Amino acid sequence: MSEAKAIAPLSDAMSRGAEAIEQFLDSVLTPPEGPEARLFNSMRYSSLGGGKRMRPFLTMQSARLFGVPDSRALRAGAAVELVHCYSLIHDDLPAMDDDDFRRGKPSNHKAYDDATAILAGDALLTSAFEVLAHSDTHPEGDVRSELVLGLTRAAGANGMVGGQMIDLLAEDMDADVSLISRIQRLKTGALIAFACEAGAILGKANDEQKEALRRYSNDVGLAFQIKDDLLDTLGKAEDIGKATQKDADAGKATFVGLLGVEEAQQRAELLCQQAISYLEIFGDNAAHLRGIARFAIDRRT
Amino acid sequence: MSEAKAIAPLSDAMSRGAEAIEQFLDSVLTPPEGPEARLFNSMRYSSLGGGKRMRPFLTMQSARLFGVPDSRALRAGAAVELVHCYSLIHDDLPAMDDDDFRRGKPSNHKAYDDATAILAGDALLTSAFEVLAHSDTHPEGDVRSELVLGLTRAAGANGMVGGQMIDLLAEDMDADVSLISRIQRLKTGALIAFACEAGAILGKANDEQKEALRRYSNDVGLAFQIKDDLLDTLGKAEDIGKATQKDADAGKATFVGLLGVEEAQQRAELLCQQAISYLEIFGDNAAHLRGIARFAIDRRT
Repeated sequence: MSEAKAIAPLSDAMSRGAEAIEQFLDSVLTPPEGPEARLFNSMRYSSLGGGKRMRPFLTMQSARLFGVPDSRALRAGAAVELVHCYSLIHDDLPAMDDDDFRRGKPSNHKAYDDATAILAGDALLTSAFEVLAHSDTHPEGDVRSELVLGLTRAAGANGMVGGQMIDLLAEDMDADVSLISRIQRLKTGALIAFACEAGAILGKANDEQKEALRRYSNDVGLAFQIKDDLLDTLGKAEDIGKATQKDADAGKATFVGLLGVEEAQQRAELLCQQAISYLEIFGDNAAHLRGIARFAIDRRT
Repeated sequence: MSEAKAIAPLSDAMSRGAEAIEQFLDSVLTPPEGPEARLFNSMRYSSLGGGKRMRPFLTMQSARLFGVPDSRALRAGAAVELVHCYSLIHDDLPAMDDDDFRRGKPSNHKAYDDATAILAGDALLTSAFEVLAHSDTHPEGDVRSELVLGLTRAAGANGMVGGQMIDLLAEDMDADVSLISRIQRLKTGALIAFACEAGAILGKANDEQKEALRRYSNDVGLAFQIKDDLLDTLGKAEDIGKATQKDADAGKATFVGLLGVEEAQQRAELLCQQAISYLEIFGDNAAHLRGIARFAIDRRT
């Protein structure tokens, strides 16, 4: 299939995937009656109706390589998305990155308040593990436990949360490309990598297949972050729905700041090509995974 | 065994249990090198060297009823304690209950800062599921998944986090005993109940045994909370290590405020006796569980 022809099916598939995730999250986050409805509404505010749903799409496409039923991959992908949504709520808090806008609307603590935002994040994180541990995700408990374990490692102190800690401290450090690569790998890369790994776990992939997906997802994650920095530098505020140039203004080191626009673009392109090369063993079944590697660096928001 | 004789073994057993938990948490929270050591130190600050470790003790004593090896019960109990510690850090934040002291020392966000405290809580919550999902907790994945699922339900939006949400909103509500009972059941009761349930899950208890432990733990949890309110009203600040009368001063409804000291004491005593009655089916093996029911209302801190 030519590249031009491949784009429409990818975007269609991403839309269908996003819709399925939306429906699933909607059903998981049904608000009860009583005062705790506020908590659920806050959780829904930051989980529904937005986002590219790239992480669950990676899970679903990785799972398809191994013939995993969509209903299971959807649950694992949704768990990854729940962790992603919680991290955005907590990262936006005044005590953290202090962002008033997210996805073109007030961030959670602005729409609700700091306390509700903290609790909504806590509850979303907890619900991710609830989704994974439920027998609908996989009939075998060993598989469910492996998913839980993988997500804790990607999301916890040695993964995403650790990355956010270093990122906050890095404002006072002499940052170089090696440091910001490490921050990216922990803060955003680990969860993107687990999104793919979840598909492999569900599908009981062999070591060679797991390793190929790991390398692919590491490169896609890094390319995605460099593209974020490029959009931050070059994009318009109305395009990406939050204040641009914010990281640079805050004195944070970025790939673009350290490498310059041109070299950053080249590096993202190289990572994209390298990521795609790892998918060779999967043949045509990996068409959408190839597409998403290109999407990571060609997207405009 | 007479009551007087039973007290010394209980306090010895609690001390040994607390020591084992301390050692285990210390090994789980080993700080890495690099800037993220700050995150681990913050996690350690609020997890090590303090607390009665009542929840893990409940897990270990419940597990013993069914002949579960201590090494497994210790891990499940530690997971409950990690959730408890995370909840204290987040509850103390300025945006939440705004407490500057906890267990006789500055609360986490005072010793570190708000951002680090938020992240430390997030990471402790995540690590609880990591401990449960590891094969050392139980060789069967189904058992591990059941533990994970149970903890998510006790700790999440329909449990502890939901209870904290209602508690924050209750300041503006006309609170009665029914409302504060519901808040207690969610905010502190659910996790205490899971502490016992975890032992039953590890031991593959039958439905009658599970139900007995559930009733026992619900009553112990409520008695424990009423005692907290009594200590808050009657205790001295230096005794319980945080500002007393705080809940009452904040206009929060408490059991003591609504019932008066005497009726609250009577209710706690009744709950304690009722809790103990549920343990009859376990015979002598439940001696320490009986002891902890008394400890819940006889303790001085």
